[in-house]
Amino acid sequence: MSFRIDGLQYANWSEKIFRQMRDGGLDAVHVTIAYHEVFRETVLNIEQWNRWFERFPELIFHGRTGEDVRRAKETGRTAIFFGYQNPSPIEDDIGLVEINHTLGARFMQLSYNNQSLLATGCYEAEDPGLTRMGKQVVAEMNRVGMVVDMSHSADRSTLEAIEHSTRPIAITHANPAFWHPALRNKSDDVIRALGQSGGMLGFSLYPHHLKGKSDCTLKDFCDMIAKTADLAGPENLGVGSDLCQDQPDSVVEWMRVGRWTKAIDYGEGSASDAGFPPMPAWYRDNRDFGNIEDGLRATGLSAEDVAGIMGDNWLRFFDTSFGPA
Amino acid sequence: MSFRIDGLQYANWSEKIFRQMRDGGLDAVHVTIAYHEVFRETVLNIEQWNRWFERFPELIFHGRTGEDVRRAKETGRTAIFFGYQNPSPIEDDIGLVEINHTLGARFMQLSYNNQSLLATGCYEAEDPGLTRMGKQVVAEMNRVGMVVDMSHSADRSTLEAIEHSTRPIAITHANPAFWHPALRNKSDDVIRALGQSGGMLGFSLYPHHLKGKSDCTLKDFCDMIAKTADLAGPENLGVGSDLCQDQPDSVVEWMRVGRWTKAIDYGEGSASDAGFPPMPAWYRDNRDFGNIEDGLRATGLSAEDVAGIMGDNWLRFFDTSFGPA
Repeated sequence: MSFRIDGLQYANWSEKIFRQMRDGGLDAVHVTIAYHEVFRETVLNIEQWNRWFERFPELIFHGRTGEDVRRAKETGRTAIFFGYQNPSPIEDDIGLVEINHTLGARFMQLSYNNQSLLATGCYEAEDPGLTRMGKQVVAEMNRVGMVVDMSHSADRSTLEAIEHSTRPIAITHANPAFWHPALRNKSDDVIRALGQSGGMLGFSLYPHHLKGKSDCTLKDFCDMIAKTADLAGPENLGVGSDLCQDQPDSVVEWMRVGRWTKAIDYGEGSASDAGFPPMPAWYRDNRDFGNIEDGLRATGLSAEDVAGIMGDNWLRFFDTSFGPA
Repeated sequence: MSFRIDGLQYANWSEKIFRQMRDGGLDAVHVTIAYHEVFRETVLNIEQWNRWFERFPELIFHGRTGEDVRRAKETGRTAIFFGYQNPSPIEDDIGLVEINHTLGARFMQLSYNNQSLLATGCYEAEDPGLTRMGKQVVAEMNRVGMVVDMSHSADRSTLEAIEHSTRPIAITHANPAFWHPALRNKSDDVIRALGQSGGMLGFSLYPHHLKGKSDCTLKDFCDMIAKTADLAGPENLGVGSDLCQDQPDSVVEWMRVGRWTKAIDYGEGSASDAGFPPMPAWYRDNRDFGNIEDGLRATGLSAEDVAGIMGDNWLRFFDTSFGPA
């Protein structure tokens, strides 16, 4: 049996979107529940999810283990896994790693674009690598089973995280820089080291990460995946669509500037293109997840590799990553 | 197989005390981890427990279900269950009930001596009963499986909690007022209604709750239990020792005054007897838990009733109370 898993979304969640997850056959989705939120704000976001779980038990439930993905498939629902794009939910307190894990967090980025207490973001001019606290927190994440995610981190910090972590890490949503050079896309060195360590790369469908942006073709996207398989190994690849469906542009501003600046920062956008870009026509939302499978098959990748990239690889990674080693 | 469970302790925890739990054969202890703490402070207390669980895995672990008590017995350890003596950890936010349950909280008192947002404490002059929020929170506690504890609440609020709750509640640590009249001890009406609803009463060994205080004899204590069995049914009784071992007197002051007054309030003590009273000679600490079993046998209670009171009744209650109904 093969599974469909999306390794990252941050939508303006609603019953409509939960139903589209079912229409697209998604067995599991890793959802971002914190960008710049401190602990208490993150808990409020979890409370919001708890209300959705209570209201829509026939569509979604809170996923904590790989087994929950199988249970989701068996019961025709989507298992929702929590993750953070910044370490702000642990504040300056390493004890909050286990607390957040108990509350369901399964992925945490060590930095989001900027320098954090733990590591450097991909937009900083200098990257001094993992901090003292960063090394301690990676060890604690390894202990409890919370995945180190370096999607928005800078290269040296990412390579050091791969090296320092005793368990495989993830880059849940990014593409190779060889295909589309962007600060958020990853160097060959990073992708190779990630694959060699058994880590996972989730391919992003966020237009700023795509060659041709919103006009990127399905064929171009899938050919890039097939080429990346040579670099990282097909068993270490998945999808992390970065779907930001139905979000108002105020949210992309929150993602970019949080509370760290009084100025405007356009991130991957620009003054003339400040909001969320339109998605490619072949991936409007969860309903189109199957299109990627068709596109991957057309590249000549084996049926097993395609099934792996569509979800089986994420499931194997979930099975071994979400509890004590 | 019979079990030994203490339905409430608030000690100055240490390796010494964890070893004494093992010496006393305790399979499970419900520990207080919040008196007046708000949510973030409560989380800090949980973090402290997580460190103890990590340091002393051969002695204790975090209990969440009745099955964990059986696992504790099988592995020669003590399962630690979290509880709150006040609803301050949920602040004014009903969503924090489920969050606290996820973090392990299994008991929460609706009030501690004073009026709370939910119910009235036993030292208030007037008791208007459950508040609007109180009724909502009881329903939410019923939904997730967090036990309503009315140990420090006033009579009307307690009777209304028994009535309003769709699941049996507990008075984890108190004695009957017929034996030793004290604001903290419970009326016949409360004890009878508790028993009829399948709720649990844990007998306290805190000297202010005992006839003769620190000089109370084991025989007097156990005769009182046998007499209460006639009122509540022996299957609804357990021990909730209220052991406050090794606490400095500053802690009893925190328990009594929290941050709600700038004056001193002596609670069950007095200006001339302000600190923790000495425990009865036959129950110094966890090592003496078995003495209660000897005392109960001497009253003529059946072997089954004695086993129930020593822990089997709490285990049955844990089995049916700690998850969704």
